[in-house]
Amino acid sequence: MKIEHEGFTLWFTGMSGAGKSTLSEIVVRRLREGGAKVEVLDGDIVRTNLSQGLGFSREDRDINIRRIGFVAELLSRNGVIAVVAAISPYRETREEVRRRIRNFVEVFVSAPVEVLAERDVKGLYKKALAGEVGQFTGISDPYEPPVSPDVTVHSDREAIEDSVDKIWRALEERGLVKTG
Amino acid sequence: MKIEHEGFTLWFTGMSGAGKSTLSEIVVRRLREGGAKVEVLDGDIVRTNLSQGLGFSREDRDINIRRIGFVAELLSRNGVIAVVAAISPYRETREEVRRRIRNFVEVFVSAPVEVLAERDVKGLYKKALAGEVGQFTGISDPYEPPVSPDVTVHSDREAIEDSVDKIWRALEERGLVKTG
Repeated sequence: MKIEHEGFTLWFTGMSGAGKSTLSEIVVRRLREGGAKVEVLDGDIVRTNLSQGLGFSREDRDINIRRIGFVAELLSRNGVIAVVAAISPYRETREEVRRRIRNFVEVFVSAPVEVLAERDVKGLYKKALAGEVGQFTGISDPYEPPVSPDVTVHSDREAIEDSVDKIWRALEERGLVKTG
Repeated sequence: MKIEHEGFTLWFTGMSGAGKSTLSEIVVRRLREGGAKVEVLDGDIVRTNLSQGLGFSREDRDINIRRIGFVAELLSRNGVIAVVAAISPYRETREEVRRRIRNFVEVFVSAPVEVLAERDVKGLYKKALAGEVGQFTGISDPYEPPVSPDVTVHSDREAIEDSVDKIWRALEERGLVKTG
């Protein structure tokens, strides 16, 4: 099914393990199958290519997010879809990026920290709770949820297909994606 | 005059004051007038948005160039023209970027260092020769000219329009730009 689209930035924010990457991968696949131009800027890609050497202080996290925002803006304004999956814990910094990018869609991937610590896919919450990892978002470092995200998905109690549909509908309603 | 184009990276390398920015601005204007999608990644834009905190050691310069290369690649492979004007003194690092980017056009903006020191538009050569600025390319830091650039322009003895024409012809010959 061929897709027509504008350039835009689809920004997934949420705590580690909430499901940002999984969700974004499904959305990206669907976009690419429709022939859309998509680039993925996830935490790992960006830490490797733009932000080696940065740590996890507020300042370093903010610099990292601004760099992602800069690249997402370049892509978006040239008709490309930039999909960002990054914890991006600070509201003000996300808002700063939103102001820079004309077509910006914020997806809040929400799940209670207790659920995430229970799931603990990468074993990081256990380490953070034991104090072995410092500056861990949601445990020893803040996560500021969005006040008015474009889409909120509850990964602890929604089927993933439903979450993807919500995101897709939001993109269609904004006129960013047209399925023809 | 409407232009059809592929995504590609037009990479200007050369010493400070050689004319990279001036030349790239003229080429960019011509491309934009033709309706092309163009983004400029020059030294200043990149130092501000991607590489604050990096210095001028070989390692830091290389990181900076790789970041520019990463962004230029994202743009190029999505049909956008990325115009890079950065000293990029190390041959090996430029070659590394070239290998990553499918449509890569290297423009060597050449001028003898004596001429540049004489011109000294920003007063930097004087300072570098007096030892007031360290790690200055061409004086106290190396500049490795390309071995086989796609285009060489001699800014000390060519009219700027002729240099621009050379670049334009190279783009047309590679089939990257079509003037219809």
